[in-house]
Amino acid sequence: MSKLIIDAMGGDNGSKAVVEALQNYLEKHPDTLFTVVGKKEELTELEGKCEIVDARDVVPMEAGALEVMRMKDSSMFKAVDLMRNGGYDAVISAGSTGGFLSTATLCLKNVPGVLRSALVSPFPTKIKGKQVVVLDIGASNENTPEQLYQFGLMGKLYAENVLGVKEPNVYLLSNGAEEGKGSPESKLAYKLYKEKNFPGFKGNIEARYVLNGEADVVVTDGFTGNIFLKGVEGVAKLMSGMIKDAFKKNLWTKLGYLHVHKGMKEMKETMDYKGTGGAMLLGINGVVVKAHGSSDARSFYSALRVAYRLAQTDIVNKIKEGI
Amino acid sequence: MSKLIIDAMGGDNGSKAVVEALQNYLEKHPDTLFTVVGKKEELTELEGKCEIVDARDVVPMEAGALEVMRMKDSSMFKAVDLMRNGGYDAVISAGSTGGFLSTATLCLKNVPGVLRSALVSPFPTKIKGKQVVVLDIGASNENTPEQLYQFGLMGKLYAENVLGVKEPNVYLLSNGAEEGKGSPESKLAYKLYKEKNFPGFKGNIEARYVLNGEADVVVTDGFTGNIFLKGVEGVAKLMSGMIKDAFKKNLWTKLGYLHVHKGMKEMKETMDYKGTGGAMLLGINGVVVKAHGSSDARSFYSALRVAYRLAQTDIVNKIKEGI
Repeated sequence: MSKLIIDAMGGDNGSKAVVEALQNYLEKHPDTLFTVVGKKEELTELEGKCEIVDARDVVPMEAGALEVMRMKDSSMFKAVDLMRNGGYDAVISAGSTGGFLSTATLCLKNVPGVLRSALVSPFPTKIKGKQVVVLDIGASNENTPEQLYQFGLMGKLYAENVLGVKEPNVYLLSNGAEEGKGSPESKLAYKLYKEKNFPGFKGNIEARYVLNGEADVVVTDGFTGNIFLKGVEGVAKLMSGMIKDAFKKNLWTKLGYLHVHKGMKEMKETMDYKGTGGAMLLGINGVVVKAHGSSDARSFYSALRVAYRLAQTDIVNKIKEGI
Repeated sequence: MSKLIIDAMGGDNGSKAVVEALQNYLEKHPDTLFTVVGKKEELTELEGKCEIVDARDVVPMEAGALEVMRMKDSSMFKAVDLMRNGGYDAVISAGSTGGFLSTATLCLKNVPGVLRSALVSPFPTKIKGKQVVVLDIGASNENTPEQLYQFGLMGKLYAENVLGVKEPNVYLLSNGAEEGKGSPESKLAYKLYKEKNFPGFKGNIEARYVLNGEADVVVTDGFTGNIFLKGVEGVAKLMSGMIKDAFKKNLWTKLGYLHVHKGMKEMKETMDYKGTGGAMLLGINGVVVKAHGSSDARSFYSALRVAYRLAQTDIVNKIKEGI
């Protein structure tokens, strides 16, 4: 039995997407207990199905930690605060990334020994069903070589325990595969991996090969990881739009679409970030899942599934033991 | 009449792709004079059509500048050296990126006032025919805020003079659109752009919007730019493969392909980096074009076209005047 806390208000699509996602989720997983925090008049459809905690304020999308910490009656602060008090397995929000991650870090604290938490998400790859773990995809703006080393440890534990990969390999994201390539920090991190004989460390990987299916874990600083994440999203969206246009041209192309419809759908699902839904803040005391700011009901549903699975795998304790 | 120097040897596909590209190019543009440097026995098909300069050595793909500078009888060194002696409009190589760019910088020197040269390439966007200039995509591993400011100036001159964009806008690539977002260097660069009232500066742009068609110039450090470039390439290739698979399934899907063939081809051409072919090293005394290491004849042909056009636009003198 899992107990999850939901910040129902922070995303671009407000409480509506969250309510719809929760209703769909509960139909399929009635064994999950939800505590939903937000304006109670917007959550009436969930009455009797979830525990509702009223919160009058909504954290703005650009808010930082200080602002959130001051907004004691906001759904985001209250959700994180409930998590701190214990008894819950995970907290999920689609609100301000910076605000949510920093508030969670301040309230829940890093796992002892963890220098910096990292936002982690599995990406789809060329090989069907195979995912690659990329971290940090945006919790930090910069990272030290020591942090980049720890990201490898945490990413490995994630791949093993959440994705079930045996002896995962670990790469550093770089501007070339050779040992001498990299940013100043990633070059020093490379040295650390080698000196400490990191099991499964395979060296540098270029961005173009990250989604090839060869890599299990790819480590990068939060700024670069965020550029990679959003670059990938942008191109995938751009190409999907182009494909749609190609099929819309005339009656013949529309008929053509009927024939490849299934294959196209599979591709779209593989590349659609809404299918992976949420990223986890790895390295703090608790399962903290950031859903996309622009989450619709489907995307938020995926984030719920991610949070549930993470809670089940006991990843936080694995990190505690592993670091 | 343009005079271009070609290093015929450095790419993954050796002289074969280069010879084929040159033959195709000369058929359509007989007004271009080529000096081709490489093993003369591999260049016999070009005899009588191009000036051939024999060079016995081939620079390995991982070579740095020091190695190239020592290989005086290599096609790469000889090509750059010819360019230094003057009388030529551009030099092109598909060989080691680091080796070629550093050797070109050492031999040709930066334009006076330029702190650091930048590798620049136009990317396709959602809007048909519209390209976006991204720099630096990999000449440096790190850049100072002052360099990032100059990249904006050079990118603007490139957009105006090579792509014909009137009053181009300039963005900084960042992990969020808000002013406070960015790497430590990009945040300081933001301040410089604002303090100096850079004409057309629009603030930060997230990676997912770079190819939307809104931005004319996007500035980033060389490490991050390289991750963006190769991330985009990787996803485009991955999705193209998926599309192909979707059409290959059975007779019906193959028939479907006939109907959308044209639209798919257009998309492929838009996203295919081989269509843009070469990146220019901006900020040094001369047109220096780096073709993709894995260039085939088609890709190298595009690089020749890029070099020709750059030589025509007199971009080097525009930079001299503009900096």
